[in-house]
Amino acid sequence: MSTVGNATNIFWQELPVGKLERQKLLNQKGCVVWITGLSGSGKSTLASSLSRELYTRGKLSYVLDGDNLRHGLNKDLGFKAEDRTENIRRVGEVAKLFADAGLICIASLISPYRKDRDACREMLPDNNFIEVYMNMPLELCEERDAKGLYKLARAGKIKGFTGIDDPYEPPLNCEMEINEKDGVCPTPGDMAGEVVSYLEEKGYLHDQ
Amino acid sequence: MSTVGNATNIFWQELPVGKLERQKLLNQKGCVVWITGLSGSGKSTLASSLSRELYTRGKLSYVLDGDNLRHGLNKDLGFKAEDRTENIRRVGEVAKLFADAGLICIASLISPYRKDRDACREMLPDNNFIEVYMNMPLELCEERDAKGLYKLARAGKIKGFTGIDDPYEPPLNCEMEINEKDGVCPTPGDMAGEVVSYLEEKGYLHDQ
Repeated sequence: MSTVGNATNIFWQELPVGKLERQKLLNQKGCVVWITGLSGSGKSTLASSLSRELYTRGKLSYVLDGDNLRHGLNKDLGFKAEDRTENIRRVGEVAKLFADAGLICIASLISPYRKDRDACREMLPDNNFIEVYMNMPLELCEERDAKGLYKLARAGKIKGFTGIDDPYEPPLNCEMEINEKDGVCPTPGDMAGEVVSYLEEKGYLHDQ
Repeated sequence: MSTVGNATNIFWQELPVGKLERQKLLNQKGCVVWITGLSGSGKSTLASSLSRELYTRGKLSYVLDGDNLRHGLNKDLGFKAEDRTENIRRVGEVAKLFADAGLICIASLISPYRKDRDACREMLPDNNFIEVYMNMPLELCEERDAKGLYKLARAGKIKGFTGIDDPYEPPLNCEMEINEKDGVCPTPGDMAGEVVSYLEEKGYLHDQ
């Protein structure tokens, strides 16, 4: 409606600002970097390091951390299979919104089931889903055990712990894989550098 | 852990990029502009117009639209009271993330119940929740009826429709109120201008 002469009837929809415009403002392309892997495989370390490296280049990123979200958006969810699936679905939906907002959204979650990760990939248009698999041996993750969770899982005090009594399904076609080289783990800076190089190469660090 | 000489044990947490740094990058402060009001009161119009006006000033905003989110994040929810509450809660949590990311997040939802809106306000630290009440008469909204929903509600084909057979609870202490002046509705540009002036005055359009 847009009736001149009767102001109370004027009611038009202004065109909202779109993704391309936001990308122009930020000089980058919105996407999701989805970091998956066992507890202790270095997901949070990479997420922090990557956000830091992007920041030094003037790029806006935001980390969605699986654990943190369980205190907020997903606080109504537990760890049974359907709750895990719903947990991942919601993070995927939010990551999609951040990518649409023009940000490089870094999602850091164990996300053990292939179908759940693939469902998130499906949500994202134009291949803007970059799956990064932290391919670290269980032994190494368990040795690190920064949160003491493996110890609890081995003692049977946590049930359904990924890698111990719940499966981790490795990606079949992920965009990137981080692993040991000659038995040596890459440093956080090296891992971040690898991802940044990928983003640069694929054109995400400029708006066109 | 950070054991020099045994690279596989090195595992440190780099400090992630924080809100203040993102705000510096964007030269603005993250916050939530929560637009509440009846269907047809102009919420989406203001959201679009405001995002446009902010964009012309080089500011990054993102609109969370209640209807749109029901196709994604909240597609598992209906319209009964507890679903409405959960709907608003999730939008509040996501809006909080966007504000933390440094964006001016514009949430546009009927959000009829005071307690649900207040719960979202509580989530936001440092008064970064700006409630904008579209105070338009029901008669005007019903006359507009852009989506034809009032007609359906009056015909009893939609149950629990806000303003018809479900209550709208006006804010008691909102930051801004948009209303008719001498029986004339403000234009989208005027409404956006009012909100931008408020944001400017409160210092949200600069990082410090």
